[in-house]
Amino acid sequence: MSLVLLKEPILVVNFKVYDSSIGRRALAIGKAAEKVHLEFGGLATIIVAPPFTELRTLSESLEIPVFAQHADPVDLGANTGAVPPEAIKEAGAAGFIANHSERRLRLDEINFLIERAKRLELKTLVCATKPEEAAAVSILRPNMVAVEPPELIGTGLAVSRVKPEVIANSVVIVRQYNKDIVILTGAGISSAEDSEAAIRLGTSGVLVSSAVMKSHDPEGTLRSMVSAMLKAIEKRELSRA
Amino acid sequence: MSLVLLKEPILVVNFKVYDSSIGRRALAIGKAAEKVHLEFGGLATIIVAPPFTELRTLSESLEIPVFAQHADPVDLGANTGAVPPEAIKEAGAAGFIANHSERRLRLDEINFLIERAKRLELKTLVCATKPEEAAAVSILRPNMVAVEPPELIGTGLAVSRVKPEVIANSVVIVRQYNKDIVILTGAGISSAEDSEAAIRLGTSGVLVSSAVMKSHDPEGTLRSMVSAMLKAIEKRELSRA
Amino acid sequence: MSLVLLKEPILVVNFKVYDSSIGRRALAIGKAAEKVHLEFGGLATIIVAPPFTELRTLSESLEIPVFAQHADPVDLGANTGAVPPEAIKEAGAAGFIANHSERRLRLDEINFLIERAKRLELKTLVCATKPEEAAAVSILRPNMVAVEPPELIGTGLAVSRVKPEVIANSVVIVRQYNKDIVILTGAGISSAEDSEAAIRLGTSGVLVSSAVMKSHDPEGTLRSMVSAMLKAIEKRELSRA
Amino acid sequence: MSLVLLKEPILVVNFKVYDSSIGRRALAIGKAAEKVHLEFGGLATIIVAPPFTELRTLSESLEIPVFAQHADPVDLGANTGAVPPEAIKEAGAAGFIANHSERRLRLDEINFLIERAKRLELKTLVCATKPEEAAAVSILRPNMVAVEPPELIGTGLAVSRVKPEVIANSVVIVRQYNKDIVILTGAGISSAEDSEAAIRLGTSGVLVSSAVMKSHDPEGTLRSMVSAMLKAIEKRELSRA
Repeated sequence: MSLVLLKEPILVVNFKVYDSSIGRRALAIGKAAEKVHLEFGGLATIIVAPPFTELRTLSESLEIPVFAQHADPVDLGANTGAVPPEAIKEAGAAGFIANHSERRLRLDEINFLIERAKRLELKTLVCATKPEEAAAVSILRPNMVAVEPPELIGTGLAVSRVKPEVIANSVVIVRQYNKDIVILTGAGISSAEDSEAAIRLGTSGVLVSSAVMKSHDPEGTLRSMVSAMLKAIEKRELSRA
Repeated sequence: MSLVLLKEPILVVNFKVYDSSIGRRALAIGKAAEKVHLEFGGLATIIVAPPFTELRTLSESLEIPVFAQHADPVDLGANTGAVPPEAIKEAGAAGFIANHSERRLRLDEINFLIERAKRLELKTLVCATKPEEAAAVSILRPNMVAVEPPELIGTGLAVSRVKPEVIANSVVIVRQYNKDIVILTGAGISSAEDSEAAIRLGTSGVLVSSAVMKSHDPEGTLRSMVSAMLKAIEKRELSRA
Repeated sequence: MSLVLLKEPILVVNFKVYDSSIGRRALAIGKAAEKVHLEFGGLATIIVAPPFTELRTLSESLEIPVFAQHADPVDLGANTGAVPPEAIKEAGAAGFIANHSERRLRLDEINFLIERAKRLELKTLVCATKPEEAAAVSILRPNMVAVEPPELIGTGLAVSRVKPEVIANSVVIVRQYNKDIVILTGAGISSAEDSEAAIRLGTSGVLVSSAVMKSHDPEGTLRSMVSAMLKAIEKRELSRA
Repeated sequence: MSLVLLKEPILVVNFKVYDSSIGRRALAIGKAAEKVHLEFGGLATIIVAPPFTELRTLSESLEIPVFAQHADPVDLGANTGAVPPEAIKEAGAAGFIANHSERRLRLDEINFLIERAKRLELKTLVCATKPEEAAAVSILRPNMVAVEPPELIGTGLAVSRVKPEVIANSVVIVRQYNKDIVILTGAGISSAEDSEAAIRLGTSGVLVSSAVMKSHDPEGTLRSMVSAMLKAIEKRELSRA
């Protein structure tokens, strides 16, 4: 994957490191995401983010963009155990997530990673826990920002239903500082309804994890989420017309 | 690689994340290590430790043991960006390095990783900066311990030449607490002579990095180090006979 | 306080940073500890460990030893926000706790702090979460080690009642490696009975926090704990005679 | 100190933890700062930031504002070794520095600390390493922001002389996002000329450390810096008139 168009709606699947996130099951979920992407004729963007150890395999096997879940804010060199952006690029990935609630970074590290990613033509999705932090991050000009109240992550309680004002508020605040950045909704997204709400609240898509990774039917879950978001976009465009 | 016999002499190549540590060059160095291993008819153990993103490729391509450079002390689950021992096992690796000077860990984390590795039948090489820290670590029963004075790492000043007493002292102290653990010499090892000294000082081998990764002839460097260590072992056994 | 004799039984009060841990209430609890110490005619050792910001005031006001709750493993110098052992000494404290579950340290950092404390004639109490970690730490020769299963800290479920085997086991394992170190029981200690059990299981005292800091009668709580430990020691000595 | 007016010019002395930063020498430097402040009839603001262990003593002894060098982003409670903003307030301090290059924080931690400080009526000075990071931080609305290129800290090479464009650029970028925030110049400030340049480049003052803490005449150094800044302000106002 080289050219990545972040076409709305966007669904990012953070694999985390569940049983289903490594080995054959990881590849199978990646293939399911690719299949759903093809079914919708490229009208939506589906990004998968497997662990570092599966990054090359999925990048080489899939036609959809593959992201790393994190990058280490260091240069190539004597850094044992580190995965700098250059290693992510070399593995064939299209970008990476940074500052996820489960792997937070210092402000200067986020800045380093965004700059380095630009130079390497990698896309960046930076997470934030609160609207004003999303706004602060947006000044550093990543490609995407996701607002994820950490208390909702992994709960199945979608932020778009339980705290819609956090999302609406984020959109307002972030747009004051950055007109172009893609804004995603994260934390607790577990259904088509949650995904639809994310679009309705003014964001471009969702960042999901357990809803797909622990699903008995990941393909079906992905399909229903993409479908709901596409309908919400259609409705939004009609109302604007 | 499943069965890993830690046969003396042992040469562990920590790839770190140089230009040469990723992509085709990483695989080429791995292949060179394999070739040298075969030349010596399996009389020595050569272990390569590439970055996480190259772990699966090298594990699947090589007949010699592949180690990760680090493991995250977490369970499988909701841990974005983490690489727990289970993911390392799944990628086909035979073990991992822990507590390297460039990625130090807390005591409880080292303990967690050693326990988890045993359950998964992964080998562990734990680094320490001083003899008494190596002794403390040896109580937790990893398979191997390497003493690396951090001020010598990457300098080309071999600890076995510049501070031989640190190595000799480590052997004495560690053996008070653990009779079986494999002790390696690290930090600054850059030549056949340094490797020979490591054996002479009573350790079972060396942990090297830049001497191989930045070499114009990694294969030749590896060959001369293994050869020197084999001769030193032969001499030691003769003197004991 | 300069000369600190770690006379058994030992009661260490980790103030943590509750409402009662700062300002006048901190000093009042320190004074209560001093009063109880005097009542027992110096037969027991009571150590109080307030936050950094109260360290000097309590050290200057009390006749019992005052410890810091942590020390930063750095030298004096350009370290903004750090409190190295030298600053603790200068504030008049007698020692410090290190590696508490709420402020864990790397192995090399623990080693640095123990060495530095010895040079400065400060006492050290190093915490560990498991028996084998306490054993590993004991090789580095701090003055005291406390075993605190983190899952019990702050629960009011005393490790000496709920998991007595952890304590008994710790004593056996630590004594294999270090004959002299003072072993304390921590985690969940909340009553005279818990403290008595700590002595009975072979340790020299207890490390407590919320039981005292959240008590309506800290003085009474301290008195009953010390009294129970003194009786347990008497009983133990009779049975040995 | 309760009411803190951040009257321009501002000179913040980060004591760090030098020999001179603790005990009697710390108090003496604090007294020198107070004396200089009084000499200039309150026309300038001098803030001193000693280590945590000296915070209460200096706060109680001085008529000028005292800041902590750091605050831990936690609530009052079971946090061994931590110094939350509440403990800083209780010690009598007027505010704290956050995110210094020697003690960097995650974005969410910076946000937590600024919010908490506001509730407690503490002032905040947040450091940043680059202009765009200062801008990102300014969105979170601390009282002051200081731009300190880390490669110049402690060098004696003043950013205002060696990299004046970094300061000028920071002022432009930060002002796009925050009209009111006080902007300071940090890193390498060691003379009256450096301080004068900081005002000329559009900031409200300087953040210094070794120039004062390692000076044979801290009082003289402080006096010359304040004097130079006052003259620069006068000149600036004349040119505006």
